[in-house]
Amino acid sequence: MEKYYFTYEDIHRTARDIAERVVSSGFEPDVIVAIGSGGFIPARILRTFLGKPILAVGIAYYDADDKPSELPRKVQWVEEAEKKLAGKRILLVDEVDDSRTTLEYCVRELLRHRPAEIAVAVLHDKRKEKRGAIPPEVKRYIAGRTIEDRWVCYPWDALDIDGHVAAAAASSDAGGGEGR
Amino acid sequence: MEKYYFTYEDIHRTARDIAERVVSSGFEPDVIVAIGSGGFIPARILRTFLGKPILAVGIAYYDADDKPSELPRKVQWVEEAEKKLAGKRILLVDEVDDSRTTLEYCVRELLRHRPAEIAVAVLHDKRKEKRGAIPPEVKRYIAGRTIEDRWVCYPWDALDIDGHVAAAAASSDAGGGEGR
Repeated sequence: MEKYYFTYEDIHRTARDIAERVVSSGFEPDVIVAIGSGGFIPARILRTFLGKPILAVGIAYYDADDKPSELPRKVQWVEEAEKKLAGKRILLVDEVDDSRTTLEYCVRELLRHRPAEIAVAVLHDKRKEKRGAIPPEVKRYIAGRTIEDRWVCYPWDALDIDGHVAAAAASSDAGGGEGR
Repeated sequence: MEKYYFTYEDIHRTARDIAERVVSSGFEPDVIVAIGSGGFIPARILRTFLGKPILAVGIAYYDADDKPSELPRKVQWVEEAEKKLAGKRILLVDEVDDSRTTLEYCVRELLRHRPAEIAVAVLHDKRKEKRGAIPPEVKRYIAGRTIEDRWVCYPWDALDIDGHVAAAAASSDAGGGEGR
């Protein structure tokens, strides 16, 4: 099955599109919350266009004994001392909405801080049956692109970045690279 | 004065070089600590090559009233619940070593957790007089490249990524882009 290959420049343009849609939707975030580690790079690019600080949260699907687990576990969360999310508008960012379980978990945990609003932004939403659900408190869900349920090769995972760029170009020529 | 323009692919290759030097130096980190928000992208790329989890810390140079401050302030730090850094080997990552004050501050704060060792990695070290100093406990300091004291344009700060790539290509043709 064909994979998606996105270059950093593709990702940058998708993040810019998302930022424009966030702004035009009337949502002005106070803070960007990046879900690590996949959300770090899109969040950092969104920061350029939205000008807001980033808080990072880390989620893992293994337990304290390094055994795989079904449920997410907090590796890092918002600091006790900085739990100033009450009344704030949060833009929660991840790279891909796959099964949706991570997003649901993070939204639910953030809602406990009683923010004014949470919006969700992902670079890519996979068209598939989701195991998680975005809680109804979330009024804005922005996916840069909706893609098919295929493997996604992100540039930051490339061991050979030149090979990755070449694969993205070949894939784009074949109509698959940009995921449109 | 000429600026440096680095593309994402330049950054990716520099991070790969750093990872190779970390490994060949005999240092095997348990955890990568990214200084936000500049360290997020290099840390995420380093994770691909080193395979270690990332903790994020946030530092700001403004106080709680949004007034500029000389001294760094913690916006986000390592979670209380996750202060498992005692006895661990930490790779502290930022994008640029400019005045060195942020790095000194973060190393000193991390040392309080009594890690086994801290190594520091930056994409770029600016050749200039430093206001901060790397504490002597740090035995490994790895700069991807040493550059002159000029303005650095990172790709993630580009409002126009295509213009940035073109500027990097022009700068590289003139011998300045890669900072060598």
